[in-house]
Amino acid sequence: MSVATALIGLDWGTTSLRAWRLGADGAVLEGRDGGPGIMKVEGGAFEAALEAFCGDWLRAHPAARLIASGMIGSKQGWREAPYCPCPASVSALAAHTVEVPLAGGRALTVLPGVCFTDPATGVPDVMRGEETQIMGALPGRGAHIAVLPGTHSKWAWVQDGAIVSFATFMTGEVYAALLGHTILGRLMQADAPPDAAAFARGVAYGLEAPASLLSRLFSARTLGLFGTLDAARLPAYLSGLLIGTEIGGALAMRGRPQRVTLLGSAPLVALYRDALAAAGISGAEGPADCAVAGMARIAGTR
Amino acid sequence: MSVATALIGLDWGTTSLRAWRLGADGAVLEGRDGGPGIMKVEGGAFEAALEAFCGDWLRAHPAARLIASGMIGSKQGWREAPYCPCPASVSALAAHTVEVPLAGGRALTVLPGVCFTDPATGVPDVMRGEETQIMGALPGRGAHIAVLPGTHSKWAWVQDGAIVSFATFMTGEVYAALLGHTILGRLMQADAPPDAAAFARGVAYGLEAPASLLSRLFSARTLGLFGTLDAARLPAYLSGLLIGTEIGGALAMRGRPQRVTLLGSAPLVALYRDALAAAGISGAEGPADCAVAGMARIAGTR
Repeated sequence: MSVATALIGLDWGTTSLRAWRLGADGAVLEGRDGGPGIMKVEGGAFEAALEAFCGDWLRAHPAARLIASGMIGSKQGWREAPYCPCPASVSALAAHTVEVPLAGGRALTVLPGVCFTDPATGVPDVMRGEETQIMGALPGRGAHIAVLPGTHSKWAWVQDGAIVSFATFMTGEVYAALLGHTILGRLMQADAPPDAAAFARGVAYGLEAPASLLSRLFSARTLGLFGTLDAARLPAYLSGLLIGTEIGGALAMRGRPQRVTLLGSAPLVALYRDALAAAGISGAEGPADCAVAGMARIAGTR
Repeated sequence: MSVATALIGLDWGTTSLRAWRLGADGAVLEGRDGGPGIMKVEGGAFEAALEAFCGDWLRAHPAARLIASGMIGSKQGWREAPYCPCPASVSALAAHTVEVPLAGGRALTVLPGVCFTDPATGVPDVMRGEETQIMGALPGRGAHIAVLPGTHSKWAWVQDGAIVSFATFMTGEVYAALLGHTILGRLMQADAPPDAAAFARGVAYGLEAPASLLSRLFSARTLGLFGTLDAARLPAYLSGLLIGTEIGGALAMRGRPQRVTLLGSAPLVALYRDALAAAGISGAEGPADCAVAGMARIAGTR
């Protein structure tokens, strides 16, 4: 006898689609990844893409709730779910979901993103998908910081389970653009293996003077020109310089926490843990499958 | 009767070649531009390129000294002239020149670049060509700051005519990489005309928190997403954000001067003058033809 599936959750981003099914007790029964991100779904054929990726689950569990988070709820996605402003709690997020009717009378609940407008500057920031992971990872009371490293890293300040503010850092995308499309890449072996010492040197240099990034970037050329770092070490150095600058910038914004929770892929979490340690901050790895745990929490609130 | 030409000076960089001829009194008699930068000279045929660009001058003025500054003296150029370490005075630069023998018994004097190693970090920085402009623009005594905006902006601290330290900022190249190769460019009209208000808004945001550049960059997306700045204004905003961050970073390094001397093309000088004014700094335009004036000073020292 199989355990009943209460919820099928989709983390549907720009470049990837992952899915899980959960029992009524919130336990993950099964997960799968490798589905198409929204940029790979042509002509808005999202229902066909969903059917192709987990039609077997949909047929086997006709009573399960369907929930999706991420860019699937953006203007470029299936149905736009407006941003939920901070403070974003599970109930506030639940109040901003939209329902997409599916063939056969079911519906897909699409979760919103979160927006935050800095009261001091009036400049908005946005996330879509990360808020659901944060809800799954940091359900408790108290003050927490979640760091989600990636193409666009997010730092989120969480109070009693609600995101009260956050900031995006374009660290990963800036790294790729600098490596691929500036003079810095010319001295680098782009496919070099990780190098912990070069990474640490970059982190220290970035942390020390984040305001000088536009200048300190040039060290990723001069240290190569002067033979201090070779082509295989320069990518790790540049990565460390950018991540150190990100951390230094976040500390300049909000002061130095003792501890943050890291949510992301294992290799990125390991890099950030090392970089945070250099700043005297403990980076604790968050729980696995926090995206679907967040979906279950938001679904339970509706 | 024509005035005798005492010196033919070449500012021979990566992408361009300019030339002037000077009388014995240092007055510019004639200038021309549009010659090939070193990247456009194939197979090391620099002497042929020189002949094609100003062979008429060489033949008409057989006794004139020939001097070149810029990347022509780099490893990728005609003959490498080793870097002169700071403090770099005209006499120190003259001591680091190299002579390239030409057909017919003449020689070309190739000027060195300058290197500076920050004693606090051990990280080197380099320039090639800008030092010659600085020697031409700031020959006097006292403390001065020269700012040379561009692909790689240089800030040089000058004391009694010698460059005592300097810093490179990759502002222009980072702008091009972000506009051309990140998500920021997707919302932008790349060929939009200048927009002073959007530029000023970017400058103010960058100046305010240069340590947060990796985060504040994302505003060049969100202000577009939320309709605050349209596609035609976002390039000027991003340019202002980067230039404001450059200036804020330079101030964080060395404190706030009252006045700097700007050396560069008229449009860039105008942008930097506006951005410096927002930081409370007067940006005075340096003299025209300061490259060849610097060559004449260095030549006079040998």
